[in-house]
Amino acid sequence: MQRFVNNPDLVVEDTLKGFVKAHSDILRIAENPRVVVAKNAPVKGKVGIVTGGGSGHEPGFMGYTGKNMLDAVAVGELFSSPTAKSFHDAIRAADGGAGVVCLYGNYAGDNMNVKMATKLAAKDGIDVATVVANDDVCSAPFSEREKRRGVAGEIFMWKIGSARATQGGTLQEVQAAAQKAIDNCRSIGVGLGPCTLPAVGHPNFQIEPGTMEVGIGHHGEPGVRVEPLKRAEEVAKDMCKIVLDDHDLPEGTEVAVLVSGLGATPLNELYILNDTIESEITKRGLVVYKTYVGNYFTSLEMVGATLTVFALDTETKPLLDLDVACTILL
Amino acid sequence: MQRFVNNPDLVVEDTLKGFVKAHSDILRIAENPRVVVAKNAPVKGKVGIVTGGGSGHEPGFMGYTGKNMLDAVAVGELFSSPTAKSFHDAIRAADGGAGVVCLYGNYAGDNMNVKMATKLAAKDGIDVATVVANDDVCSAPFSEREKRRGVAGEIFMWKIGSARATQGGTLQEVQAAAQKAIDNCRSIGVGLGPCTLPAVGHPNFQIEPGTMEVGIGHHGEPGVRVEPLKRAEEVAKDMCKIVLDDHDLPEGTEVAVLVSGLGATPLNELYILNDTIESEITKRGLVVYKTYVGNYFTSLEMVGATLTVFALDTETKPLLDLDVACTILL
Repeated sequence: MQRFVNNPDLVVEDTLKGFVKAHSDILRIAENPRVVVAKNAPVKGKVGIVTGGGSGHEPGFMGYTGKNMLDAVAVGELFSSPTAKSFHDAIRAADGGAGVVCLYGNYAGDNMNVKMATKLAAKDGIDVATVVANDDVCSAPFSEREKRRGVAGEIFMWKIGSARATQGGTLQEVQAAAQKAIDNCRSIGVGLGPCTLPAVGHPNFQIEPGTMEVGIGHHGEPGVRVEPLKRAEEVAKDMCKIVLDDHDLPEGTEVAVLVSGLGATPLNELYILNDTIESEITKRGLVVYKTYVGNYFTSLEMVGATLTVFALDTETKPLLDLDVACTILL
Repeated sequence: MQRFVNNPDLVVEDTLKGFVKAHSDILRIAENPRVVVAKNAPVKGKVGIVTGGGSGHEPGFMGYTGKNMLDAVAVGELFSSPTAKSFHDAIRAADGGAGVVCLYGNYAGDNMNVKMATKLAAKDGIDVATVVANDDVCSAPFSEREKRRGVAGEIFMWKIGSARATQGGTLQEVQAAAQKAIDNCRSIGVGLGPCTLPAVGHPNFQIEPGTMEVGIGHHGEPGVRVEPLKRAEEVAKDMCKIVLDDHDLPEGTEVAVLVSGLGATPLNELYILNDTIESEITKRGLVVYKTYVGNYFTSLEMVGATLTVFALDTETKPLLDLDVACTILL
């Protein structure tokens, strides 16, 4: 295992220490060491924005804390939900008196812990609304969308929800904007190589050399098919077909495109995928308004990429354009 | 080879196509398809800023094109210098009538091609000044600094030179600022795993599992030693010692720190390194003014990290703070 770790059981602690040192200009750690808080949070009178999730997806979750972005983030162990207490502490740290919207991904642990945290926050007198991301097309059929997992589309949900809060939206307005954002996101992942939790020391799942897994989840959850590794343009066409067939957008719709690496894929290959992705999207009569390419939502050193297509409208487009200050270019 | 490629011989072409599609809001391709130009370049009366280098280091080189950053970038094949013609075309694209500074790395091919391009530009009546980056401490002893290679410190050289040009500096002033920046940078790389050029199909060099190579170059150039893989904090201490011993900065000096992944190292592990790095720097009586952690200068899917420490002064600090718009957060 060729990795930079100290004690494999303390990867998250060590990560957080180095993370906060790097970004102390925009964020800090709460009294609970597993809660990251934007430096200016809570903002009095503004709806607070919270998320949380397992570690190992960096900059996923905590890296999106910042000005005009997430107010507080609950940090879990590698690939595990944060505790209910951490979600609760994040909600309290984000609360500026106008309530808090918790925007998180559809995983069993997160669902359970957010529910408990919401109850605890209610006892503190904090109104909490939630939106559950379910943008991962391959994790369940369209008819069972409520079962789908949340993946990189969460970034758009966070950005739109946060922007609406910055603009003075009420709890219900912020919740509605974030819900609209995630409802208009579709994502898919393709895996070319697995990842290893340092404390385990060997991959939790396998992807045989010469093959790829289409529709793979962020923790190696099985995709819809394993097939021989194809040329990048064929992979990109498959990704677009799966995502766009699920969405059925009217011609002329403007979209934001996010091509994220899973951790160990070179940036130039994400651009190679993007070449075909943008062509395919354009062929469908859609208009690419903005593109993000890079390691935006990863899975340790997994080899692979995800595509997220976010259909914009006159409400969400200006919200997407709002300037933010977090740890990554948005 | 688990990679997203089409024709392995056309990796750079395909990368550029997807790159320009993603970032057409800030850059474009020149008539020469191997030259990337900032959308607003050339800026009349401003000194133009040019660089160039081999591909495979993304976002290295072309990703730093943009507003208040590089005006034009010559793009080479994977791990190979751009042609003299491409450097020449980049210089012409960047020229706003006040001359052009070419800020590049100390590699044989780049040295030769920039020299030829400078001569060609002189025939066009364009004044060209150059600064050659040599921040890689392990590539030659201090007494032979002129032989050292340029690595991630180039990013600071570009930012400082570009900022000085934005502020209206003359050709000589911009050259001097960029020279000061790179003179005050020291970098080191540690390799944990090699990388593979897609057209070759197997790694060009080896790093045996269980070992690491200290002082490795961006193309697998041998480091100063191969040793058993250590804990992250030991690796970080070694990196700091090598970099800071070479620099001998007075106590109280403010520094910018860049911890870059080499392509396949998870972001959380860069933060783990940063935890110890910032502690070590602080122990020396230095003050960390700003930290950058991420894949800023890579080598395809190489596993490893680089550390760059940039000593600031009253001239360079405000230049580092100037807002820019390129493809990565700076």
